[in-house]
Amino acid sequence: MRIARFSIDGNVAFGAVEGEKEDELVLDIIKGIPFTEFELSGTKVPLSKVRLLPPVLPNKVVAFGRNYADHAKELGNEVPDTPFAFFKPSTSVIGPGDAIQYPTFSTDVHHEAELAVVIGRMCREVPRDRVKDVILGYTCAIDVTARDVQKREKQWARAKGFDTSCPLGPWIETDLDPGDLTIQLTVNGQQRQLGRTSEMITPIEDLIVNITEAMTLLPGDVILTGTPAGVGPLEIGDEVAVTIEGIGTLTNKVVKRD
Amino acid sequence: MRIARFSIDGNVAFGAVEGEKEDELVLDIIKGIPFTEFELSGTKVPLSKVRLLPPVLPNKVVAFGRNYADHAKELGNEVPDTPFAFFKPSTSVIGPGDAIQYPTFSTDVHHEAELAVVIGRMCREVPRDRVKDVILGYTCAIDVTARDVQKREKQWARAKGFDTSCPLGPWIETDLDPGDLTIQLTVNGQQRQLGRTSEMITPIEDLIVNITEAMTLLPGDVILTGTPAGVGPLEIGDEVAVTIEGIGTLTNKVVKRD
Repeated sequence: MRIARFSIDGNVAFGAVEGEKEDELVLDIIKGIPFTEFELSGTKVPLSKVRLLPPVLPNKVVAFGRNYADHAKELGNEVPDTPFAFFKPSTSVIGPGDAIQYPTFSTDVHHEAELAVVIGRMCREVPRDRVKDVILGYTCAIDVTARDVQKREKQWARAKGFDTSCPLGPWIETDLDPGDLTIQLTVNGQQRQLGRTSEMITPIEDLIVNITEAMTLLPGDVILTGTPAGVGPLEIGDEVAVTIEGIGTLTNKVVKRD
Repeated sequence: MRIARFSIDGNVAFGAVEGEKEDELVLDIIKGIPFTEFELSGTKVPLSKVRLLPPVLPNKVVAFGRNYADHAKELGNEVPDTPFAFFKPSTSVIGPGDAIQYPTFSTDVHHEAELAVVIGRMCREVPRDRVKDVILGYTCAIDVTARDVQKREKQWARAKGFDTSCPLGPWIETDLDPGDLTIQLTVNGQQRQLGRTSEMITPIEDLIVNITEAMTLLPGDVILTGTPAGVGPLEIGDEVAVTIEGIGTLTNKVVKRD
C-alpha cells in the first residue's frame, strides 16, 4: 500500500494511493492514523485536488553517513568500519513539491538521494530478526547538505539540519523489499546520482539494530540509509528529483531563502 | 520566576516555585503553558507532594561542543575557531531525580555539566540584540556522553543521543543574567567540575545567532552551552548533581539499563 499524507480544504489526513497512471491517482482517505490498525473510509479524492505533505512528521530523523563505498570515496573519505549516525531535526522536514530554501550561510549546497525507512512503532533494542516488525514502509528523501559548512564544522547540525534540508515523499510504500532497488537523482532532468540499495555497506536491518541499541525510536521516526555516488551542487532555480524503484518520485525546487 | 513542570495524581502542569527553604517550597499552579502570556492560579501544592518532570519537553536539543577552553584542552582537542553544534533527541531527555540508564554499548560514560537555555518562542535568524526576547529562561543539564563511542564514531548521535543522556532541571529560572554564574558538578558529593559561565568561548547570544542562522527554534527547544573542565566517568550507583548559581541543583542517579 502507498500511504500519503495530504491537506485538502484546510484538513490534514492520511490516504491510500490507488491507481497506476500518474494523472488518474486517487486517495482513499484513511480513518485515523497508519501507525495503528486502520481502515480505509472508502471516500476517495483525486490526488490532483490535494496538496501532498511530508508523509510523516518525524520526531527525529536519524541519518547514516558513508553507507555506499563509492560515495565515501568520491569525497575522499575512508569507508567506516562501523556505521555512524547523525540527526536531522523535525524542523528540516518538507514534503513533495515544497521548496528547498538555499541557506544564507553556505555557498555549496549538495544533493544526496537516500532511501528513507519510516518507523511504524515505538521500539528499542530491536533484534535483527524483528526489524521488519518495526518498519511501516519506505519513502524517498534528499539529505540536503551544506558541503562547505560540513567541512568547516566538526559536527553537522548546521550543515545538515537547516530548515528545508530534509525533503521526504511522495508517499510511504509499505509492501516493498528494499534490498535491491534502483535509486536515482536528477537535476533539471539530468541524471546526477545512480545506485542500487544493494550497494549499502551496512544493510537496513543492521542500521536499525545499531541505532535502537542506543535509543528509542517513535512511530513516524525516519532512518536515512546513506547516499550513492554522484553528489553535487544545487543552484537556486534547480528542480531536483529522486526516484526509487517501487516507490515513486520526490520532486523539489531550490529557491532563494525568503 | 522559577517555572517547574510536574505531575500530581496523574495530571501534568507547570507551576511557579515559591519559597526559599528547600523543604518549604510550594508550586503555584500555572493556568496554561508558560510559552504564552499566563496567569498563576493561586492554587498551591507543596513541592514535596509532586513529582518534578523535565521542565520542558523539547522538540530538539541543540548542544554546542568545546565551548570552554579548559575542557577542550583536557580532552586533547583544539579550541575551535567557530562554534559547532550537534543534536540530542527528545527521547534522551529525563527530569530531576530520574535515572540515567548506563547504556549497554559503552563502558566509559562521562558527565558534562552544562547551562541550558530554554527557548520561549518560535524564532529564526535572530539578531544578536533580540536574543533575550526569544529566551524563556535557564536550567541545569548534563550532557551524558559515551566517551568511547564518541571517539569511535565520527558523528555523535549514539554517543550523546542515547536514552536518558539529557537530564534537565530542576526548573527554569526566568530572571537571571547568565553571564557569570558558577557551574559545579559533584559525583557522590565530591566535586568533579567547576567553572564559570563567563569562561564560555562563544557567549550565549552568539550561539543563538549561529544556530538560528540555519534553523527554526521552537518554544521549549533547549540549547546546551558547553561544559567546563573536569569531565570524568560515571559508574552504576553514582549520584551526580549539577548546581548552577541562581538556578538550583539537578540530581540524577546512574543505574543499570533495564
